[in-house]
Amino acid sequence: MASNTFGKLFTVTTFGESHGPAIGCVVDGCPPGLPLEAGDFSADLARRATGKSRHTSARHEADEVEILSGVYEGVTTGTPIALLVRNTDARSKDYARITAQFRPGHADYTYWHKYGIRDPRGGGRSSARETTMRVAAGCIARKWLEVRHGVRVRGHLSQLGPITPAGFDPSVVEENPFFWPHAAQVPELESFMDSLRKSGDSVGARVDVVAEGLPPGWGEPVYGKLDGELAAALMSINAVKGVEIGDGFASVAQKGSEHRDDMSAEGFASNHAGGVLGGISTGQALRCSVAFKPTSSLRLPVESLDVHGAPVEVVTTGRHDPCVGIRATPICEAMVALVLMDQALRHRAQCGDVAPATPRIPAQRP
Amino acid sequence: MASNTFGKLFTVTTFGESHGPAIGCVVDGCPPGLPLEAGDFSADLARRATGKSRHTSARHEADEVEILSGVYEGVTTGTPIALLVRNTDARSKDYARITAQFRPGHADYTYWHKYGIRDPRGGGRSSARETTMRVAAGCIARKWLEVRHGVRVRGHLSQLGPITPAGFDPSVVEENPFFWPHAAQVPELESFMDSLRKSGDSVGARVDVVAEGLPPGWGEPVYGKLDGELAAALMSINAVKGVEIGDGFASVAQKGSEHRDDMSAEGFASNHAGGVLGGISTGQALRCSVAFKPTSSLRLPVESLDVHGAPVEVVTTGRHDPCVGIRATPICEAMVALVLMDQALRHRAQCGDVAPATPRIPAQRP
Amino acid sequence: MASNTFGKLFTVTTFGESHGPAIGCVVDGCPPGLPLEAGDFSADLARRATGKSRHTSARHEADEVEILSGVYEGVTTGTPIALLVRNTDARSKDYARITAQFRPGHADYTYWHKYGIRDPRGGGRSSARETTMRVAAGCIARKWLEVRHGVRVRGHLSQLGPITPAGFDPSVVEENPFFWPHAAQVPELESFMDSLRKSGDSVGARVDVVAEGLPPGWGEPVYGKLDGELAAALMSINAVKGVEIGDGFASVAQKGSEHRDDMSAEGFASNHAGGVLGGISTGQALRCSVAFKPTSSLRLPVESLDVHGAPVEVVTTGRHDPCVGIRATPICEAMVALVLMDQALRHRAQCGDVAPATPRIPAQRP
Amino acid sequence: MASNTFGKLFTVTTFGESHGPAIGCVVDGCPPGLPLEAGDFSADLARRATGKSRHTSARHEADEVEILSGVYEGVTTGTPIALLVRNTDARSKDYARITAQFRPGHADYTYWHKYGIRDPRGGGRSSARETTMRVAAGCIARKWLEVRHGVRVRGHLSQLGPITPAGFDPSVVEENPFFWPHAAQVPELESFMDSLRKSGDSVGARVDVVAEGLPPGWGEPVYGKLDGELAAALMSINAVKGVEIGDGFASVAQKGSEHRDDMSAEGFASNHAGGVLGGISTGQALRCSVAFKPTSSLRLPVESLDVHGAPVEVVTTGRHDPCVGIRATPICEAMVALVLMDQALRHRAQCGDVAPATPRIPAQRP
Repeated sequence: MASNTFGKLFTVTTFGESHGPAIGCVVDGCPPGLPLEAGDFSADLARRATGKSRHTSARHEADEVEILSGVYEGVTTGTPIALLVRNTDARSKDYARITAQFRPGHADYTYWHKYGIRDPRGGGRSSARETTMRVAAGCIARKWLEVRHGVRVRGHLSQLGPITPAGFDPSVVEENPFFWPHAAQVPELESFMDSLRKSGDSVGARVDVVAEGLPPGWGEPVYGKLDGELAAALMSINAVKGVEIGDGFASVAQKGSEHRDDMSAEGFASNHAGGVLGGISTGQALRCSVAFKPTSSLRLPVESLDVHGAPVEVVTTGRHDPCVGIRATPICEAMVALVLMDQALRHRAQCGDVAPATPRIPAQRP
Repeated sequence: MASNTFGKLFTVTTFGESHGPAIGCVVDGCPPGLPLEAGDFSADLARRATGKSRHTSARHEADEVEILSGVYEGVTTGTPIALLVRNTDARSKDYARITAQFRPGHADYTYWHKYGIRDPRGGGRSSARETTMRVAAGCIARKWLEVRHGVRVRGHLSQLGPITPAGFDPSVVEENPFFWPHAAQVPELESFMDSLRKSGDSVGARVDVVAEGLPPGWGEPVYGKLDGELAAALMSINAVKGVEIGDGFASVAQKGSEHRDDMSAEGFASNHAGGVLGGISTGQALRCSVAFKPTSSLRLPVESLDVHGAPVEVVTTGRHDPCVGIRATPICEAMVALVLMDQALRHRAQCGDVAPATPRIPAQRP
Repeated sequence: MASNTFGKLFTVTTFGESHGPAIGCVVDGCPPGLPLEAGDFSADLARRATGKSRHTSARHEADEVEILSGVYEGVTTGTPIALLVRNTDARSKDYARITAQFRPGHADYTYWHKYGIRDPRGGGRSSARETTMRVAAGCIARKWLEVRHGVRVRGHLSQLGPITPAGFDPSVVEENPFFWPHAAQVPELESFMDSLRKSGDSVGARVDVVAEGLPPGWGEPVYGKLDGELAAALMSINAVKGVEIGDGFASVAQKGSEHRDDMSAEGFASNHAGGVLGGISTGQALRCSVAFKPTSSLRLPVESLDVHGAPVEVVTTGRHDPCVGIRATPICEAMVALVLMDQALRHRAQCGDVAPATPRIPAQRP
Repeated sequence: MASNTFGKLFTVTTFGESHGPAIGCVVDGCPPGLPLEAGDFSADLARRATGKSRHTSARHEADEVEILSGVYEGVTTGTPIALLVRNTDARSKDYARITAQFRPGHADYTYWHKYGIRDPRGGGRSSARETTMRVAAGCIARKWLEVRHGVRVRGHLSQLGPITPAGFDPSVVEENPFFWPHAAQVPELESFMDSLRKSGDSVGARVDVVAEGLPPGWGEPVYGKLDGELAAALMSINAVKGVEIGDGFASVAQKGSEHRDDMSAEGFASNHAGGVLGGISTGQALRCSVAFKPTSSLRLPVESLDVHGAPVEVVTTGRHDPCVGIRATPICEAMVALVLMDQALRHRAQCGDVAPATPRIPAQRP
């Protein structure tokens, strides 16, 4: 069917292949009156862009967003907002050799069986190139969430291969190319990545995203739960293999008396739930965590087949990040923002008349 | 908005509160011609039912399903299939005391803020009672998947609090009340649960689900990925805090050369991916894993507030499982089956004409 | 796929066959806090009910609605509202003879080809019995529209076979069994229907519906236009063959200077548009008109085929209205109300923050 | 919410304002393997284009379609197909005067109240410019329907103001600028239009569309009926005020014995139903008819208001068709094709396994 649209009320329909003429999206359902201009997309697209450092791939895609519709005199009008990014730096010849090969860990084999045809240039539709438009659409959601509700969404890397943060200082996350929350570890990360690149291998990563400022009440039972929608959104990102909300898999070994978050007039005593109960926001910080598998494209040869069933040795010589998770941080943030904006509109649709309830408990005790 | 419907082409709309007159669902989009009778629901509903052993809660709900529509002379007709289960054993008086209290770890506070009103009887709509209808609807999907495609979905407990299986024998899973894959550990589990119950506390659990027999090609890029839909489906189950596909969070510390699954004419060499690449099934076993938090309803008192903002001490005296994850196994299986059936129909809609592709690689090397 | 759900944000999923155990619906997305009880459905279901007079069919279905969920202490809670009506007066033997026959003008032949199976009892799912649940769901929408927005939806018959109203007095519509707006014609209608019944034939009808009190701004460009959604809703009623908004087909022969509605501070000068411009309400009365074909079930024999391809003569001896359009008036009203409520919620979702615009023009000049 | 997407399984999301940088659409859900190139859109876009004759407006929009995605080496790949048309001939200065005015018969007043802001350039989003993308997307549907199922969709004008066809010859429809089925009347139409243009006034039109070659079985009860979806699709076209299926409003005055279509092994005796029974295709020709109101933009002055509530006299001096219905013929065809393709995929999803039923009755008796 048609599965290139994300969201229910605030929808994002993306299109485009990695090495086609362009990628783009149509954002539908945006409230009117939001100031918006092409420059609003620059910062997050730069954060996502390849070529940010020597630890991500060396492609220098311009990623200049053109706004084709939905904005008049710098303000959204309520009509669909189409965004376009021309593909400028695609060197299709890099991929010519593997057109008929199934690259292990990639979607080559599965697209071939699903569609009977595939665009092999740079992974075609299955390339992470598509996430550019998620980040762009996410910029609109983030802006609206902040202006209208004071909600802020921020991510950081919480694991790189075997390495975990030795401390947490949110102010340094944007100051290093790893979105890492502990500045002192950056040299260690750099040398880890350098040796990884030399070895021709790759590694996975974990990204944490936190959204603050949510009111209690966003999210919908039963199949529109805030955490359920987040899981779908985050798992839909290329290379993601796991999603947690709050304490996630650690909850399995916890006692109930340990996991449940006490409430008092001074606030919630803790946030094991991650800001969601019964699929609805509590007003605490929304906490989620995402597992990225290691990059599948390696210089190291691997046994595989071609489309005729003959054995081949696949070696990927194109430019690829040795850890796709690093620059996935802004993508995860974008998906969380898209879910939140959609849920905000959904809440307003059904419960727009509900008088604010009391008591409202502070997100955290002092 | 309206979020009580699951699925796109094979949809399940559930309704009902824990202690209301009835719960039920409408299953829409089922292909015509599938034999179906009330007895088809008995086995899985019994597997899910409370009162199965002393380790789950002592409520003995009959859960007899009445088929109200969509079946004529024992065969589905293509029209919506409505299923009804009357609530017979609801003792609302058990809950009278906590009507005005917010139980920590429950949806009381969030429903209150979302809707300005809530049905406090047994958790109302937020109760796991709703999952009865997921299991019932899942029976239809499981039957169709097996009859039409030879697909089988099976789950087991893979962690109970701190305990993990010491072995894996699928034949014993249905032979013990824990859905545990290693028979020798059952006495240990029983004594663990007994001491837990005495302490008044609860614990989390992890459930693994495996689906075998899928053809390659099910699942849809980009926002309808098989793994994305599974994540949404499983995270929508009460008390779930995490979802993994394939190696899940373990992928983070893996090398790319370790994670990617080599392919040869003899088959895939491994299944780190969990049967999904690019959101589309590979034909290997689909593997997912789900984290359940510990039950929030405890005999142990906890600090909280009432709806007037006054401090209260909450003690739950009703009948509750000390580990909700145990009888969640058939619920997880049902959700996986619902996703697979929906994806099978979606695949047929768009790609019904695509000629079967070659080569088709065996799911696993001998 | 699954097409038994109507609406986007306020959804109605109906189920049930004419002679199955029950019919029902699930209403999802209703705002919380609306008073609702079983008695709220009685009046409109009685208006729709068969057996209202000798001019409609003689079946006396009780149509008592049971509320299964979504209401607590007489007030909606925001969770899905399930409604159930048991079928009590189905005499399946009436239909035994025609089980294998295709009745011309009915859905027998088309269901047979679509599904390869059909429930022949009383038309099965294709029976107008299903519209009972539309009327029931419509009662919820009508109540909310009136309480929340002061919107009222009213219908009347505007043509019965060749007869058109000789005058219009809204106060008499509910005072005669034809929903006819001119009392003096009622004897003429009665004798027309009596002679029609004697002849064994049937006739078509036209129903007009007017909704008053709408604010300007409801309805959505481009594919969610208020008039587009009305057309879908009304055309989905059994036996409908045409839908008009405002001047409808009469617009074809009009001049632009005649059709467009002048605006001044005193109000709109006319309402040729029927209260919709660009798919969005103007604040004037919403006017639509619906064409019902004559009943296809006749005592007069007709040439047809059976499922084996053999010629048969079909004679329908069951109880059938000689004009289905008469009691379709409350069904049309219900569908208009469902569309309006859905659009009201959709408008609130996207434009809930938009400050009320000026000038607001009176619906009609004094 | 987000209402710029048409269809369920074969979806078209359009974007763009009349005088913005571009208009475009994303077509999602197209089966893979369909040959497609930019030239496939030329013929129908030319049929729709302004400037075709002196009887339509004098704007000469190039309307060259660029395919941005979803096609690889001339064949669809199953991924979303984005189409882009740059706006080249927009003279925004024509509209400067009426920026603050509400033009009667247009969506100016309603957009103002809905969104609190509007793009006044050429009608912005409410312009019929958007229908360009419907026609483009329709070309894909038409091609697939013809190649895969042998279905052909053709329209013609069946009324122009007061004038109706004096004969019907399908072969002349494409030979005159009015899509008129009787060649001898063309001079009469030309002089009618000339005098209309001189008067500064406009007139309505009726368009008939016929689709031939449908199998029995397409369309879905209850809210996805083929006729219901057609009604929504056609009513969503700018300036449409009425939709009929089969005999439409004429059915109201018909007797049942006259309306129902007898069936025999030789075929259906007639086609009053218009090829749909119970919302499902019969295999006969699908017949529908659409009423277009007269153009609202006139040189004749009209009383109105500006956004400040002050009275204004509106005179439209831009280039406008005196009868928008004439070039609406290919738009109506496109919408019918989009509905049919969507229904074909929906049918395949649920009933892809149903064995072809017998008997299959010829569409019409010899």
